[in-house]
Amino acid sequence: MSSDSLVPETRVLAIASHVVYGYVGNKMATLVMQSMGCDVAALNTVHFSNHTGYRQFKGTRSTAQEISDLYQGLCQSHLTDFDVMLSGYAPSAAAVEAVGAIGLDLQRKAESKPGSFFWVLDPVMGDQGRLYVNDDVVPAYKKIIHHADLILPNQFEAEVLSGIKITSLSTLAEAITAIHATYSVPHVIITSVRISQFSESPAATPDNLTVIGSTIKSDGSPRLFRVDVPALDCFFSGTGDMFAALTVARLREAVFAADPALRTTRSWVSPDDVRPTDLPLARATVKVLASMHSILEKTLEARDAELRTAVSAEEAEPGLSEEEKQKREYLRRTKAAEVRVVRNARFLREPEVEFQAREWTKEELPVGLW
Amino acid sequence: MSSDSLVPETRVLAIASHVVYGYVGNKMATLVMQSMGCDVAALNTVHFSNHTGYRQFKGTRSTAQEISDLYQGLCQSHLTDFDVMLSGYAPSAAAVEAVGAIGLDLQRKAESKPGSFFWVLDPVMGDQGRLYVNDDVVPAYKKIIHHADLILPNQFEAEVLSGIKITSLSTLAEAITAIHATYSVPHVIITSVRISQFSESPAATPDNLTVIGSTIKSDGSPRLFRVDVPALDCFFSGTGDMFAALTVARLREAVFAADPALRTTRSWVSPDDVRPTDLPLARATVKVLASMHSILEKTLEARDAELRTAVSAEEAEPGLSEEEKQKREYLRRTKAAEVRVVRNARFLREPEVEFQAREWTKEELPVGLW
Repeated sequence: MSSDSLVPETRVLAIASHVVYGYVGNKMATLVMQSMGCDVAALNTVHFSNHTGYRQFKGTRSTAQEISDLYQGLCQSHLTDFDVMLSGYAPSAAAVEAVGAIGLDLQRKAESKPGSFFWVLDPVMGDQGRLYVNDDVVPAYKKIIHHADLILPNQFEAEVLSGIKITSLSTLAEAITAIHATYSVPHVIITSVRISQFSESPAATPDNLTVIGSTIKSDGSPRLFRVDVPALDCFFSGTGDMFAALTVARLREAVFAADPALRTTRSWVSPDDVRPTDLPLARATVKVLASMHSILEKTLEARDAELRTAVSAEEAEPGLSEEEKQKREYLRRTKAAEVRVVRNARFLREPEVEFQAREWTKEELPVGLW
Repeated sequence: MSSDSLVPETRVLAIASHVVYGYVGNKMATLVMQSMGCDVAALNTVHFSNHTGYRQFKGTRSTAQEISDLYQGLCQSHLTDFDVMLSGYAPSAAAVEAVGAIGLDLQRKAESKPGSFFWVLDPVMGDQGRLYVNDDVVPAYKKIIHHADLILPNQFEAEVLSGIKITSLSTLAEAITAIHATYSVPHVIITSVRISQFSESPAATPDNLTVIGSTIKSDGSPRLFRVDVPALDCFFSGTGDMFAALTVARLREAVFAADPALRTTRSWVSPDDVRPTDLPLARATVKVLASMHSILEKTLEARDAELRTAVSAEEAEPGLSEEEKQKREYLRRTKAAEVRVVRNARFLREPEVEFQAREWTKEELPVGLW
């Protein structure tokens, strides 16, 4: 590896969960951003043995006070010169508020230097139509999102934040427009939408996932781009965290590659004449998805190999109950699907596949957004 | 980077401290081992804002119960297929015992497959002639070291464990012999000794640090090698953790490159006819030190550049008291000396300098050890 494949030097404060085993939350995000060349301060909001996809885990959650204390520890020793903050899972409404206060304080410190600090917020609340946090976490997020520069909701979280049920390309665009308008958040990416579920898109490839992004224009309207990628037939935990971490690195790289004035523009919002597909956000997204695609493909291969060679629960320990056997098999499959980042880190730095961002066509957009 | 520069696939359980900012403990060890291609499970024994070299920090310590619970979480989901355990700082005697119990349990699980599990123990107790842990941590370590495969004391810790004050090459060799004998620990590295402090070595280069290692022979006698490296004129925190993490990766690589029988030999102890400098431990140590030397050189350059350009406390905030100015300056210098691993990770994988391991000469050794 040459050091040319690293992104510009970036000091990140990453606030998310820690797991001893496996790759989600800060365990994933730290590894990904460090592999790209970022200096990462990792403030952990939970300390679990493994991710919750195993359906069992042990460990502790940080209190809001513990999160604030750690940040105060950084402040008192003048260790807060961060370029970017990436905030993910927080285990309570009070913890979300504590994270929000940290983001605000870092913004205040950077006030005199527009563009010198950027907050990427992943509003981790739920997926697939249901919340997996307490109800009071939702209003806590709604309060702090106003201050973020980029948010990364999945389809369900975008619905929760916008109040709009996403059932079509029109409602998808409406949800993004509403998020820009309601929260004044300049950049949004909805990290995965299955367009093929929309009845209006019979021609959409069912095996594609679509990522939708937008950077606001000066009149408040969205500037929408989409990237379609082939979906892999497996559920992996931690992909949202990998997406967020890659986006931090690639967005900063794309901003550094753009007109130098952008770097000192508040929230890195490109001038109105920059087309959607030329946005740093779009340029970053295609690279992010390329890295992810390669790493998840390698993960799928490794998972299949592991499941083929590993000894089944029955062979390892004969005489288990049917229930216990099923549980063992589930754990084994979950373990086998842990994302293989370490041995494939080169695909983070040098993605091989190429995806394209494209503008939404007139037909895809609701009236008034064209 | 080609994947050729990664070490053989190695699953490590790393138990040590976590700091939000900077690089010591597990924050250092995880990054180093992941950069080398190891899959690292990180069990954190403290959660601090920064390392204690700043002379102030905030955060919490894990209790022995929390450490045991996290390990139980791994056990219940069958996530304990580790090849190596690396244990470092534990914040109390009870925590040291909890870590010891984990090491023992992993050894028990691997009992039927000699060589399939290896425990590297860094007995973090103190440095420069003084303990920085509670007195009761010392007997706790003395109990668990019997079970470790390799220990990595510094000079002071070697004195504490052996009961021998190291004032000469003879007493150094006696200390290692005593550690092998007292604790039946098959591999020892004393991570840094200033040979020039010994009055018997007037010709020793004062700017050298010496690393001394030994793998036990079947009669219990040591097999001693030494590697001399130029010392850099700066104190860096986390170098012990970097040394330990690199050693995990490089030792496993060296064992895989040796006679295949070694891999299935208990504790990877080479046959008696393997000379000291041909030991996997010696081959690993020279590569470890080469990587460290390059990264610390780069750190020194970056530190000096940072200290030159950074605004002094007086300029940044005029009117500070003399005491406050001195404190700021100390914090600034400590921050500037954080080890620069991320942007120099290539030196971990592909060390450029070459050091030599050499046997101790007859004149250097006490009677009976030749």
